[in-house]
Amino acid sequence: MARTSGSHSEITGPRLREAAQRLFARHGYAAVTMRQIAAEVGVQAGALYNYIPDKQGLLADLMRSHLEELLAAWAEEPRGAGPVAALEAFTRFHIRFHLERPDAVFIAYMELRNLAPPHFAEIEALRKSYETRLEDILREGRAAGLFDLPDTKLATLAVIAMLTGVTTWYREDGRLSRDKVAGLYWDMVRKTVGA
Amino acid sequence: MARTSGSHSEITGPRLREAAQRLFARHGYAAVTMRQIAAEVGVQAGALYNYIPDKQGLLADLMRSHLEELLAAWAEEPRGAGPVAALEAFTRFHIRFHLERPDAVFIAYMELRNLAPPHFAEIEALRKSYETRLEDILREGRAAGLFDLPDTKLATLAVIAMLTGVTTWYREDGRLSRDKVAGLYWDMVRKTVGA
Repeated sequence: MARTSGSHSEITGPRLREAAQRLFARHGYAAVTMRQIAAEVGVQAGALYNYIPDKQGLLADLMRSHLEELLAAWAEEPRGAGPVAALEAFTRFHIRFHLERPDAVFIAYMELRNLAPPHFAEIEALRKSYETRLEDILREGRAAGLFDLPDTKLATLAVIAMLTGVTTWYREDGRLSRDKVAGLYWDMVRKTVGA
Repeated sequence: MARTSGSHSEITGPRLREAAQRLFARHGYAAVTMRQIAAEVGVQAGALYNYIPDKQGLLADLMRSHLEELLAAWAEEPRGAGPVAALEAFTRFHIRFHLERPDAVFIAYMELRNLAPPHFAEIEALRKSYETRLEDILREGRAAGLFDLPDTKLATLAVIAMLTGVTTWYREDGRLSRDKVAGLYWDMVRKTVGA
């Protein structure tokens, strides 16, 4: 019995989170009701809170999961030796990871304003932690005389904005494959940092 | 009488548009009601449609005005001679123009999904028209052998994403002035295009 109930909850919780992510990405956090999320998965609205927190907690959960997954995936990513290889790995990783998760990326960028202050501070800290991974690579490359960077912090923000921008226009049926796009962006990132 | 009524309408319409822009930027299009917009300006909800179209038309109006103003301002911008000077002018112009209009920029990027198809097509065409201004500069510079660009279209998208990214983190009380930021971005843009 406990096993069955546990399994049910283990399946329903993630399905509700997936439904919420899809609905938030399509219509916006403010326009989606908890009732709609429940209906999408076939759960009674009254039973919803057995599986997931309130709408605000759900939004924070989605953003937290996305960023924790991003940090964990980057920690596992092979990156060769030295700052130039690390920067190429970061460029290709960032594009690939974000193109694979359009809904999560859209929510992470679009719905920040809808996070209440304590959640906002937590999510911002995770986002900055990821930025710091790139900043560390740039600082190391600059210290080694491999990169020409008048301002490491600004270069960090510029490179991340450039790479994340791919998610706003990339289409699977477009003229360029993901790998080709990543290669062309690596050429631009390399030049941007003067490597 | 006609004069007074005209003036009243000429003032109320823009004030309603400003209020809508502020409310859409703060809470999101989906979360704002026409009643809230009316209340913000002290207009009776029933009289609202004398001054402005429905909520969808209002959103399209705001985006259209923003993009038309952007295109007109760039057309007026001094840009020196040749593609390198034009690219520097574009970089500084884009950052300045967008930092001066945080609410309009936020709406232009965040609320595209809330435009109905005919409006979406119109706004997309204006946005692409602006991108083409930059693409033309890059193409000209490439043809003249001044820029090293494996893919002009991708470089256009990369540069615009990089520059627009400034609006997501820039703070007036931060460590860098707008001019200083524009100068540092120009250094990066120049390198990105291999100039």
